[in-house]
This record gives sequence, structure tokens and C-alpha cells, in this order.
Amino acid sequence: MQQPQRIVIVGAGFAGLEVAKALGKAGIDVTIIDRHNHHLFQPLLYQVATAALSAPDIAEPIRRIVRRYPSTKVLFGEVAGIDRDGRRVLLSDGEAIRYDVLILATGSVPGYFGRDDWAAVSPGLKTIEDARKIRSELLLAFEIAERATDPVTQERLMTIAIIGGGPTGVELAGSIAELSRYTLARDFRNIRPESARIILVEAGPRLLPAFSEKLSEYAAERLQRLGVKILTNKAVDHLSDGELGIAGERIGVGLVLWAAGVAASPLAREVGVETDWLGRLIVDDTLRVRGEENIFALGDVAHFADADGRPLPGLAQVAKQQGMHLGHSLARHLTHGDALVPFTYRSRGNTAIIGRHAAVFEQGRFKVKGWIAWLAWAIIHIYLLIGFQSRVLVSVQWLWRYATYDRGARLIARETTPKARPGPKAASRKRKRHEKT
Amino acid sequence: MQQPQRIVIVGAGFAGLEVAKALGKAGIDVTIIDRHNHHLFQPLLYQVATAALSAPDIAEPIRRIVRRYPSTKVLFGEVAGIDRDGRRVLLSDGEAIRYDVLILATGSVPGYFGRDDWAAVSPGLKTIEDARKIRSELLLAFEIAERATDPVTQERLMTIAIIGGGPTGVELAGSIAELSRYTLARDFRNIRPESARIILVEAGPRLLPAFSEKLSEYAAERLQRLGVKILTNKAVDHLSDGELGIAGERIGVGLVLWAAGVAASPLAREVGVETDWLGRLIVDDTLRVRGEENIFALGDVAHFADADGRPLPGLAQVAKQQGMHLGHSLARHLTHGDALVPFTYRSRGNTAIIGRHAAVFEQGRFKVKGWIAWLAWAIIHIYLLIGFQSRVLVSVQWLWRYATYDRGARLIARETTPKARPGPKAASRKRKRHEKT
Repeated sequence: MQQPQRIVIVGAGFAGLEVAKALGKAGIDVTIIDRHNHHLFQPLLYQVATAALSAPDIAEPIRRIVRRYPSTKVLFGEVAGIDRDGRRVLLSDGEAIRYDVLILATGSVPGYFGRDDWAAVSPGLKTIEDARKIRSELLLAFEIAERATDPVTQERLMTIAIIGGGPTGVELAGSIAELSRYTLARDFRNIRPESARIILVEAGPRLLPAFSEKLSEYAAERLQRLGVKILTNKAVDHLSDGELGIAGERIGVGLVLWAAGVAASPLAREVGVETDWLGRLIVDDTLRVRGEENIFALGDVAHFADADGRPLPGLAQVAKQQGMHLGHSLARHLTHGDALVPFTYRSRGNTAIIGRHAAVFEQGRFKVKGWIAWLAWAIIHIYLLIGFQSRVLVSVQWLWRYATYDRGARLIARETTPKARPGPKAASRKRKRHEKT
Repeated sequence: MQQPQRIVIVGAGFAGLEVAKALGKAGIDVTIIDRHNHHLFQPLLYQVATAALSAPDIAEPIRRIVRRYPSTKVLFGEVAGIDRDGRRVLLSDGEAIRYDVLILATGSVPGYFGRDDWAAVSPGLKTIEDARKIRSELLLAFEIAERATDPVTQERLMTIAIIGGGPTGVELAGSIAELSRYTLARDFRNIRPESARIILVEAGPRLLPAFSEKLSEYAAERLQRLGVKILTNKAVDHLSDGELGIAGERIGVGLVLWAAGVAASPLAREVGVETDWLGRLIVDDTLRVRGEENIFALGDVAHFADADGRPLPGLAQVAKQQGMHLGHSLARHLTHGDALVPFTYRSRGNTAIIGRHAAVFEQGRFKVKGWIAWLAWAIIHIYLLIGFQSRVLVSVQWLWRYATYDRGARLIARETTPKARPGPKAASRKRKRHEKT
């Protein structure tokens, strides 16, 4: 390959953005396509979903991030398909963008293990829109419970289930428990938000399976202290609006959130080559898609086997390291003709946050839990946030929340109307009550 | 009237909230109904629409504001009608809430002088949803222009018209001009955002008609320095998607915003009594609706005649003063049997912001302009924002923007898809270009 090559990156997440930055620094022409105008700092997305942060706090315009690189173009559009033979990326508006080198970094979507009908009743958390929707529905459950009169309906509405005991599930459960127990506690008249039932369901034997057993136990113990009910070794077998089935038992719920699994972005299939069980593109050690000369994949959409033959986990640090690596490797390849360099992953440790003062961190044999892990997590995440403004704002909000248990982003979107939610029983009972008022 | 009375307030804007707070302080039972869960600090809404602030920065949960008053109930629901004879407020979900005293504080909506078909192509700015929509469409116009190739289409997309030269129109024009000239300037490759045409159309002879001529001239001069084209004595006679007609001439536009007029909230009509030319309820000097014993109206939905017989303007300070007044007057009436007290408006001065360092302030003969007015405006608005957190966050964001011209909330909502906007000509031209890429 020699310049000028048409290099197209699809996806401006951690992986795609790092590739763009590295190529941009080398002055190589590149087009980065994304269906959002912003890069999203996904590790903090659960805080938008639980009303602790505003959406713009963790979203940065892609254009602004790459504006210092004049050879980098940003195309705001949605990729609908790939014409591999014609070497074209097809946009949903009918346009086609030619490429010589294609870099796919389109990430992942919630994965429902073949139960795609569950997507409508149990949203996952991947985009700003997901987070805003979850925030609205979460706050709405309490609002409708406040207007309901019969205790059964109130209890059902104030039962929030989270499916999946990995870091996202643990973070959501902890944050929702704190929201109900501290932030909302004094704001209602007919209900006691602190009595909300938060249920965390994990199909495996313990929470945080990627961590050591000791840290799993700590996380479970801390969540229980926040009032979270943990169900392990329980598989979900039914999900409908307002009802959750676990191991044959049915539970009335106000909201169910999905954190049990992800699948590769559907665009991976469009390449027309073999994918793994999660739909990921299998890449060689240089991040090139197996069997393809000019298509690369990285981040959550790629299956990169480590030394033991297992795929690397879907973590921001994996995506970021792969992005930096591929960017530099490709830049040297294109400008100096050097061979592509094999990628090696260096884990910087795993972390999960449970609540105030409570987090776990593990890197190999090094394990920390409690407030030191929490503080380290907070400092690292503020540091990692792109853009100085976001860092300052997020710090201020965190300090504020830390001091007061208050949350600043309790906004219910108007699109989510209050009348849309309560079941028929709740509605008739409510009317009766208000007639008496 | 004697306690216990069922007091219902509809609307938690500046007016309704002040009534609720005053009655809450007096320990009187009251229900405040709003179709949003938040109180909105409307004077800063244009900053959300122009990507300078996040929506949650200027929205505060109503429950949180009144939580210290145990006798105050918040009902999150939409009022669809009023059954005056049955003394019931009818909610859109079918419920009915009985009242003995009804206080209407439902504010205003954009008013199109009978041209309601213009609402779809020229959004006004009243709610968080309006602001987010305008922000998305504004940023989207530049994104689509970036992808267009023919200069005519680009010029059309980058023509933003604002109809109405009052404070809102001036603030929008100034803020959009700064956004295009400073914030977006370096972020695009094919267009020069700083060359965007911002047109401010005013049907009357000058901008800011409520201010003195000297300050009007200053505002016009400052806006022109920012590149805003001002058309006075020009009435809009045509509005369609992408086209604006002024005094017989047609101008291609990327976006038209409506700041030319407001009308009372449609709920005013539901009372079934006489309203003025803007649909406002005519109230006596105690804010009681004319001819009604137990219905009050205040803020933008009320027509309160001043000493000269002219209605008070639709300003936050009018709403707030009326709310505080009615709250105290009604509390004494209900608890001590005192007669209702006539309301007197005390103007704290009018202000409008044009841009960095540029604002006008006028109170009677006292007039200020320039950076002193701007600083006073900034301090006052931060102070007025409800909730300490918002104040801190907004201060930080303003300081940041002041130092860098940067904006933190440049988020295009995914609901607004890029393919939805360009006209048929633009789309075909774009495709041609990308085929060549």
C-alpha cells in the first residue's frame, strides 16, 4: 500500500478515534464516519442513566477532538452496508464512500442471546439516547407509584431489576439504590422511595466473574448493604412489560434493565466474512480481518485472540490500546512501507464501582477495594474524560453529589408521557382515589 | 373561604412555583400539577438551544424545590381541561382532581398570529424539548452543509433566520453568530461556519422596542459587528421548509426560529370566560379571574392591567412577583380571613444580552450598555438560578466559554437523523461528489 490511499474509519468510539488521531498526527488523509456527532465516554454512561450527570458532560463533538489534524475529515452519517468488492461504504442516505483501507470500529450493541423480543422491554445501555430513556423511565416509575394508591401497584412500580452481574450491572444497581435511598428519599409524599426493591440478577454463581472471588464477595456485601437483592445462579426465562420471570417464578417490576450481554455491532456481518458467536470479526495479530487484505477491525467489534486463544474482553482500554496501536502501525506502513506490527494487550487492571466509597480494582495479584479503589476510580475517570471542560464540570458535580447525595440531572423527557406507563389496574385505582381528593 | 380548602396550582413556572412556596411556608395543603417533572429557568433556555449549556443545568425537579414543605404535593401529569361547574381539573390520562381554589399559571406558547402552519417550520423556544430540537437542527444545518458540494446549497443551509427582534430574538441571533464565528469556525473542512448568514427579522422599526432608542441602536450595532444582518420594518409573508419570504422576497434558509410572538397557554380557554387578544385570562387587581370567585391566573397566562390600562409584559420578574404576592395574600386570606391584597408591579429593569461583553439594561431613566450590563446580567442570572449546584456549574461553564469561546453541549440528538434534512437537490449533488471521492 502506498499513499494516497483512501482511508475510511467507521465509528468514533475509543478505538476509531485513537486510529484517527494517530493517522491525523502523521498527516495522513482519513475520513471518520459516525452516526453521532459526538464521541461518547461510555464508562460513565450509567451515571447519565441514573441522573447523576448530564449527557453533554460525557459527550464531545468528534470534530472538535480531531480539529487540530487538517488531514482528518469527519462525516456525520449512518453506515448501512459495505460493498466489499466495490470497496465502498454505503450510507443509509444512499451515498457511497470509496475506500482503499477500511477500519471498522463500530463497537457493540446489547445482546439478548436470541431473545430479541426482550429488547423492547429491557433496554440496554449503549448510547446517550439509551441513557436518557432509562433515566426518564426510572424517574417515571417513582412518579407513577406516587400517584398510585394500592400498595401492590406501588411495590411493583418500585421494583427495578437489572439483568447481568458484570461491572455495568453492578454499577447500575449501586447507583439506582443510592438514587432511591438518598436522592429521592424526601421528595415524595405517598411513597417511600428508599423502600424500592432493586434486584440484581446473575445467571452465573457470583457477581463480577472477571474479578477474584474475594472482590466479588465484597461487591455483593456492599450492594446488599445498599438494599440491593442479589440473585445468582438464576436465569431469566420471561420478560414482558411489567413482569420478569426468573427460574419459573414471576416478579412484578416497574423497570428491567439489560446488562447481561453484548453482541458485535450488526455492521460486522456486512463484511461478509466469518464472525464468532457474538458476531465479531476475527482479526489477526495486526488487527486485520482474517482473509481480508485491506479491512481492519478493532475494539468491541473485533475478536482478537490473546496468547491463550481467548478473545480480549470488551473494555475501553482494549479498544483504546488497539486504536493507538493500529494508528501508529498503519501510519508507518503507509508512509515508510514498514510491515504492520503485531498488537499486544497490556491490562491496566479491571475496575467496577459499587457506590460511594465502594469500588473494586484488580490487576493480576494486586487487589484493592473500598474507598481507595473508589478514589482511584474517580481520579482516573476524570483524567480520562476527553476535553478539559468536561473534566472540570464532572469534578464539580461529583464533589457536589459526594457532599449532598443530590443529583443534578433528574430530567424526565417530555416524549415519555406519564400516562403511557401505568397498567390498567393502576389507572382505575388511581382515578378512584383522586375523585376523593 | 376557610381551611381545609383544596388548592390546586397548574404550572410550576416562576409564577406557580412562588405561589406553592408561599402557601407551603404557611403550611397550607396544596397540589401543584405540571406536565414536566422540572421547573425550567427559561431566561437561559436560548443557551441550551445554542449549545452553551446542558438542559439539566437550567432544570430543577419540582419535587426537590418544594420538598421542605410537607403540605405541598406535586402531581406529574398533563392538564387537558377544566370542569368549572364541577370544580375539577381534568388530566389527559382521564383522572379528575377536585379543587376549591384553582390557580392557573400555565404560561405561554409561541404565537403565530393565526399562521399556525408556520409552527412546524419555525419552532419557538419554550421547553427543554424545543431547545434540544433547535440545538440539533442548528448543528445539523452545518453538518449537512459540510457534506454538500454546491455553494448554493451550502449557503442556503448556513442561512439561519430569526423572526422577531425582541430580547429572545436578539439573544438567539447573538448567540448563534458567536457559535458559528468562534466555536465552530475551525471544526469543518469544506465549509467556513464563520461565513454563516444570521438574519434577524423585525416587523417594527427597530430592535428591542421595549428599550430606549439609544439601547436599540447599540444592540443593532453590536449584532452587526458579529455579522448579523438586521432587517427592520419587514414582515414575514411566507415560511416553508427551507424558504423564508419577507416583503415579497424569497430567501433560502437552513433554519428559521420563531421569536416574534407568544400567546397564552391554550388551557386559558378551558376556563370558559372572556380572554384578551392573546388568549390571556383577564384578572382583577388581586389576580382573580374576572367574574370568577375561586379561580386565579398569573404570569404569562394572565392579563393584568397596569395603571395605564396596559397589560404587564410577559417577563419572569412579573410572574415571580405575582406568584409571591398571590401566595402571601392567599395564605393570609385562608388562615386569617384577611381580604385579598391588590398587586402592584415593581419593575427591576429590563435586560437583553447580545453577546460577550455586550448587553443592555434599562430601568426607567437608568440605562447601561456594554460589558458592565453584561457582567450584571451574568451575576444576576447565576444568582437567580434555583439550586446551588446549577449555579456552580453554570458559572464554571460560563467562565470556560468566556476564556475559550468553546461550547460544551454540542449534542445532536439521534432522533434527528442526518438523512432527514437535505432537500432533493442537495442529496443528488452530494451523492455525485462522494462517488468521486
